Amino acid sequence: MKLPKILENVIGDFARLPGIGGKSAQRHALHLTKWSHDEVKEFAQNILAMTELKRCQRCGVFSAADICIICTNPRRQESRILCVVETISDCIAVESSEQYKGLYHVLGGVLNPLLGIGPDELNFAKLLNRIESENIESVILAVNSSVEGDATCSYLRDMLEDRVKIERIGFGIPMGGSLEYLDAMTISKALENRKQI
Amino acid sequence: MKLPKILENVIGDFARLPGIGGKSAQRHALHLTKWSHDEVKEFAQNILAMTELKRCQRCGVFSAADICIICTNPRRQESRILCVVETISDCIAVESSEQYKGLYHVLGGVLNPLLGIGPDELNFAKLLNRIESENIESVILAVNSSVEGDATCSYLRDMLEDRVKIERIGFGIPMGGSLEYLDAMTISKALENRKQI
Repeated sequence: MKLPKILENVIGDFARLPGIGGKSAQRHALHLTKWSHDEVKEFAQNILAMTELKRCQRCGVFSAADICIICTNPRRQESRILCVVETISDCIAVESSEQYKGLYHVLGGVLNPLLGIGPDELNFAKLLNRIESENIESVILAVNSSVEGDATCSYLRDMLEDRVKIERIGFGIPMGGSLEYLDAMTISKALENRKQI
Repeated sequence: MKLPKILENVIGDFARLPGIGGKSAQRHALHLTKWSHDEVKEFAQNILAMTELKRCQRCGVFSAADICIICTNPRRQESRILCVVETISDCIAVESSEQYKGLYHVLGGVLNPLLGIGPDELNFAKLLNRIESENIESVILAVNSSVEGDATCSYLRDMLEDRVKIERIGFGIPMGGSLEYLDAMTISKALENRKQI
């Protein structure tokens, strides 16, 4: 059965979202036909409003003002710690732990020569500026564990080690994780990162 | 970390789609921040266009014209068979089997007294009209197997059995299904529906 073009367009859009395949995309699009016209219009408006999302000009996280509430928080400024993350999602994840009370810096990705992403494509220059201007004493690299993430960390270490204390978040067994189901890489990292108790 | 209202709105919308929880909805919404403004605008326009989707005034499936190409197909009209489905999705599923060459009738749901859905809320009156005006000889109930689906089938049988031959699609073990993983209800239905070979 040939679906209407209108529906095909929406299915195509949904299928671009992470973890949504063709079948789910069709299910979601058909689900919209059960919404009232007003609800569909509101959804469209909400999507459109995404183009108005502002980012903090200093750190790169979402912000209503030019500079976000994290950057303007005096306590966080006083910490002199900067947590470097790949994306805003990672920043939200770190923030949800409620353990970190310093500043953030969103890189916008990791170094990936195959995709043509070098230091100039990422927020590196601004990071250097911030370390100088904000008297940052310590940088925490909360970068994911991937080949590109590791390369990015090495690059940043070489770039920053003369200026600040530089650390990377710990790798090991996740809380509630079971040894028998974990991959060998994680276990060897966990053994390497063992700690006296 | 408090997310911007713009993002919260879109997360709320995504979370209303089937099988999408809060975490996935957030992931999808954040993914949209990686799209270009033009892509986001196009997505919003595509969603908005959903309000313009037309349905066949006769059977209820999607149609560009007032009456769909299935209803106006002479071969399908000549079959004098009507397949009754709950939703358009079910119609698409039956159509994808490429086995059925008759007409459709979308009920728009199943009887559900608890939710206040009675015969008047569904497309029952039009179904009766169609059976008369289109000289339908046989009705296939392609209604899902649920308490409400079963009740709807009983209701339709009582309503239609004097006028047309009325059948319900077969229940049993799905193709490729493994007996050991199937529920007892399906197995007992499959035993009941056994066929000489």
